Amino acid sequence: MKILVINCGSSSLKFQLIDTVSDEVLSKGLCERIGIEGGRLELKVRAGEKTSEQVEMKDHRAAVDMVLKKLTDTEQGVIRSLSEIDAVGHRVVHGGESFSEAVKIDERALESIEECVDLAPLHNPANLIGIRACTALMPGVPQVAVFDTAFHQTMPPKAYLYGIPYEYYEKYKIRRYGFHGTSHAYVSKRAAEILGRDIKELKIIVCHLGNGASICAVKGGKSVDTSMGLTPLEGLIMGTRSGDIDPGAVQYLMKKEGIGEDEVINILNKRSGVLGLSDGTSSDFRDLAEEAGKGNKKADTALEAYALRVAKYIGAYAAEMNGVDAIVFTAGAGENNSEVRRRIAGYLSFLGTSFNEEVNAASRGVECTLSAEGDKVTLLVIPTDEERSIAGQTEEVLKKG
Amino acid sequence: MKILVINCGSSSLKFQLIDTVSDEVLSKGLCERIGIEGGRLELKVRAGEKTSEQVEMKDHRAAVDMVLKKLTDTEQGVIRSLSEIDAVGHRVVHGGESFSEAVKIDERALESIEECVDLAPLHNPANLIGIRACTALMPGVPQVAVFDTAFHQTMPPKAYLYGIPYEYYEKYKIRRYGFHGTSHAYVSKRAAEILGRDIKELKIIVCHLGNGASICAVKGGKSVDTSMGLTPLEGLIMGTRSGDIDPGAVQYLMKKEGIGEDEVINILNKRSGVLGLSDGTSSDFRDLAEEAGKGNKKADTALEAYALRVAKYIGAYAAEMNGVDAIVFTAGAGENNSEVRRRIAGYLSFLGTSFNEEVNAASRGVECTLSAEGDKVTLLVIPTDEERSIAGQTEEVLKKG
Repeated sequence: MKILVINCGSSSLKFQLIDTVSDEVLSKGLCERIGIEGGRLELKVRAGEKTSEQVEMKDHRAAVDMVLKKLTDTEQGVIRSLSEIDAVGHRVVHGGESFSEAVKIDERALESIEECVDLAPLHNPANLIGIRACTALMPGVPQVAVFDTAFHQTMPPKAYLYGIPYEYYEKYKIRRYGFHGTSHAYVSKRAAEILGRDIKELKIIVCHLGNGASICAVKGGKSVDTSMGLTPLEGLIMGTRSGDIDPGAVQYLMKKEGIGEDEVINILNKRSGVLGLSDGTSSDFRDLAEEAGKGNKKADTALEAYALRVAKYIGAYAAEMNGVDAIVFTAGAGENNSEVRRRIAGYLSFLGTSFNEEVNAASRGVECTLSAEGDKVTLLVIPTDEERSIAGQTEEVLKKG
Repeated sequence: MKILVINCGSSSLKFQLIDTVSDEVLSKGLCERIGIEGGRLELKVRAGEKTSEQVEMKDHRAAVDMVLKKLTDTEQGVIRSLSEIDAVGHRVVHGGESFSEAVKIDERALESIEECVDLAPLHNPANLIGIRACTALMPGVPQVAVFDTAFHQTMPPKAYLYGIPYEYYEKYKIRRYGFHGTSHAYVSKRAAEILGRDIKELKIIVCHLGNGASICAVKGGKSVDTSMGLTPLEGLIMGTRSGDIDPGAVQYLMKKEGIGEDEVINILNKRSGVLGLSDGTSSDFRDLAEEAGKGNKKADTALEAYALRVAKYIGAYAAEMNGVDAIVFTAGAGENNSEVRRRIAGYLSFLGTSFNEEVNAASRGVECTLSAEGDKVTLLVIPTDEERSIAGQTEEVLKKG
């Protein structure tokens, strides 16, 4: 099957055209500044060429239209006609409690996604716009929604309920949902393959350490807990997001700065994390590692606090599952930043895992094992591939249906 | 030495008169509804008699005055004259970054405590009123301030900094302070004694599980991390406090309920925790265990969520210290509630600790070991005694000075 994977943001659109038979990415690209002056399209096709061009896109429909034209372009295109596209798989951020797996998009599914807008006011509307644009431009092509939250719907109440009045869960559905589900599912499955064991017997902790970051406890192949919550702000210290913080500090900061709840949450989302901790040095872990190496103390502390938070979640989830068989690093810093991995691993030997400094230093963006043969806990690096996973899930849904 | 230990709340005053030579509590009591109609004094003296009487106290000074009269009363009293009181030890909630140990109260100390009012607007003013009342009524008697936060001042920046812009730490001192320091210090020291080992070599996790609850990682006798933060709201699910929650959920709840930051924090402090989770069943763990036993599902889930949160912090701190030698339960539920301990211990065998169900079931308010001889990690119950510890610290400060 040839599946077009679409990931719509409020003013952006990422896509990949994936051939699930040859397991190849035929084309991929990014539309930026949709509906804003100075739009831009980046395109990368199979042969490896990469192009970037200025192009105005008045809305997401215009962006999808342009992507489809590029895919069938006589020069840059990779397919002859749109009829070669068998399905579209959409990344949808929030599925609330309605979706515990990917679904074929129909009127009922659309309504349910609409109902979750309240829970993800920045993301779900953009996802819906992307779906509607595809419906208009590719009538009859089946579309599937793949949710960031779906994999975590297996969490038990003790993990997903906050310690707040129960009525707020009933009335407003305030609970932990978790995100990055597609990545956590993909990576934990791959970890079981590498270990050569049935995932049903395994306790795995996946550390998805991108610019947004979350950790997931996967027991028997199911998510039993994860660090992001009602929103993607909770949990780890991230590039620009605070992660966990005393709710009393939220109130305190509002009073001290004389700001409202939207502004404080904006600060916690966009000016915090390692960027804020490093006093503005950078939100990029490569920069921070370099600066720390040069003696920038705040950059070093930011990395220390970051690694400690990750280690604490690993310990917490080891306790929650009463043990752990494998710990996996994935996504941006997890796949590529040996310094970040080294700092985290410094906390973990008590679990019964060693850490091969040489393998770690050499590992960038490839699968590898950082622990030693025979260790009680295996430490792995596994690159994630959310697009491929969305394509896979899309195919599965269509074959089932 | 005979030391009067005073713990002032906004409308209450708890006291104990402790003889540090005989290690005896000569008298203890509680004044309630100070400055409010319907004041009440409870008194318990050495012989074990307990009295309760209605008595109006127009302010804290009137309450201290009455306490002193009772102590020297010809019938209920335990000393002949006030001159027998060698010193007063005050519990002070917030010492900010100014106090890393107990101090003799003088003008400079008072100023520094004043400076911390902003950080603990409900507690420090009451503590200051208590100090001033004693100064007025017992001129010349040395007074010592013992801070809830002091023991945690050894935390490194990676543990006490939040992932927020560094300027908020510099400008407003927003950071983790932690509380229950007197209890964590006392209990960890006692654990080392029981283990018969030098505390400098030990990694201890203290679970102070009262109505307010916090966990502390004690490495080499020093606090390296603790679950309460800028305020006593962060961390564990407590009797009525939420503990950790997505900051995004704070914003969401404000919008949904149309309330301000003070109101939402009030809800998170007073209507949340196991009380909220159990849909109002109770904030008392005895009631919850009973209700859960009778089949009340929400009470059971509240206990499950509570125990899971404690277990996650234990795992997190084991990772932070890269190992743990002893885990200690203390305070209300920690000392007395076998059901709560049993649920928490269910997560911990991976650390190398067993759990003696029989010893646990029989243990109420006494020191005991729940793990087995030879276990890698020792599981202990140690009753805390904050008043005795305050008396001890008071004596120490005066002897030093």
